[in-house]
Amino acid sequence: MKRIAVLGHHATSSGDFSLNDLPGGAGRMDVLCRCVTSSLFLSHGMRRDVEVYLVLLGPPRPPVTLRFSGERIRSLNPDERSAGSLIRRALAIPRGDQFRESTPGVAVRRGGLAGLLAEHPFAVLHEDGEDLQKAAVLPENVLLSDHLNFTEEEAELVSGCPSFSVGPLSLHANSAITLLLNEHDRRSAGWT
Amino acid sequence: MKRIAVLGHHATSSGDFSLNDLPGGAGRMDVLCRCVTSSLFLSHGMRRDVEVYLVLLGPPRPPVTLRFSGERIRSLNPDERSAGSLIRRALAIPRGDQFRESTPGVAVRRGGLAGLLAEHPFAVLHEDGEDLQKAAVLPENVLLSDHLNFTEEEAELVSGCPSFSVGPLSLHANSAITLLLNEHDRRSAGWT
Repeated sequence: MKRIAVLGHHATSSGDFSLNDLPGGAGRMDVLCRCVTSSLFLSHGMRRDVEVYLVLLGPPRPPVTLRFSGERIRSLNPDERSAGSLIRRALAIPRGDQFRESTPGVAVRRGGLAGLLAEHPFAVLHEDGEDLQKAAVLPENVLLSDHLNFTEEEAELVSGCPSFSVGPLSLHANSAITLLLNEHDRRSAGWT
Repeated sequence: MKRIAVLGHHATSSGDFSLNDLPGGAGRMDVLCRCVTSSLFLSHGMRRDVEVYLVLLGPPRPPVTLRFSGERIRSLNPDERSAGSLIRRALAIPRGDQFRESTPGVAVRRGGLAGLLAEHPFAVLHEDGEDLQKAAVLPENVLLSDHLNFTEEEAELVSGCPSFSVGPLSLHANSAITLLLNEHDRRSAGWT
């Protein structure tokens, strides 16, 4: 199982947002939607061995964590609105401290980064890290920030995590995910 | 200058489509919108040395070619609706045999793949091609198909083009673009 976690610093924690304004009213939810698509979709089929965690840190009641399971997901198409629609449905159900499923393969709970780090070891994808292609062992679980840098508090939480870079230029989070998964694919298939 | 051309087999050639239904009513225009974003965006800024060509092959009056110039583009955000909005505006102006600008950095003309191939040498990104990371020289100009395979007629047109693959699994067109540009970035920066 590979786990990909993305922090959405302004992403709304309420299901009351418009699919017509994912970047604005929903707090750059478009960034997170593209991360879901890049994590789970192959050209024809899904990556069944990937889980995506979205940590929503925007108002009104953060933090919230959503989990998309490639193994169980249904009714997801590659466009941003499709992921946005599943996020909206997940934010509409009551949430507690344990994951609860809102639609097949999508679950929601209270809590954020600290909880994830307590459950699984994560590496950070960051432009200052070690070149992923040169890593002796690829990380199974990675954490990325959205279009904003880690806050001081987050940087403190991940200070002990190994850090990897996908290339010499700073890219969108979903592009970094594509590059990570390609490197996994290449190693699994003996292409490197 | 790098050129990235994408064939949209069902993508509407009329500006009369809804931004709320890019996958359905607009003929998988969402695929092309993501290709524009993956081609032109860095995390903070644009790839000024990239041009994107979208070849729209859907009704009512195909083929139409749109050109997005990274050097001149304005008013483009990374979300699908933003690219879709510029496509809609480009399809709303009269079009002739020469490119005509609809908004800064976006231009439109009649014609399709044959015209592009007559103007520039293109390589094809396709899962059966040579591993891009092992290529002695990377292609400057690449052609991709959307979620559908090349038609027989298109395959005939590109039969003389070199063919490159981005990895062992078949991926979405925009993911293949991300992987191509990363390989360019790595070589430019001496990372390989």
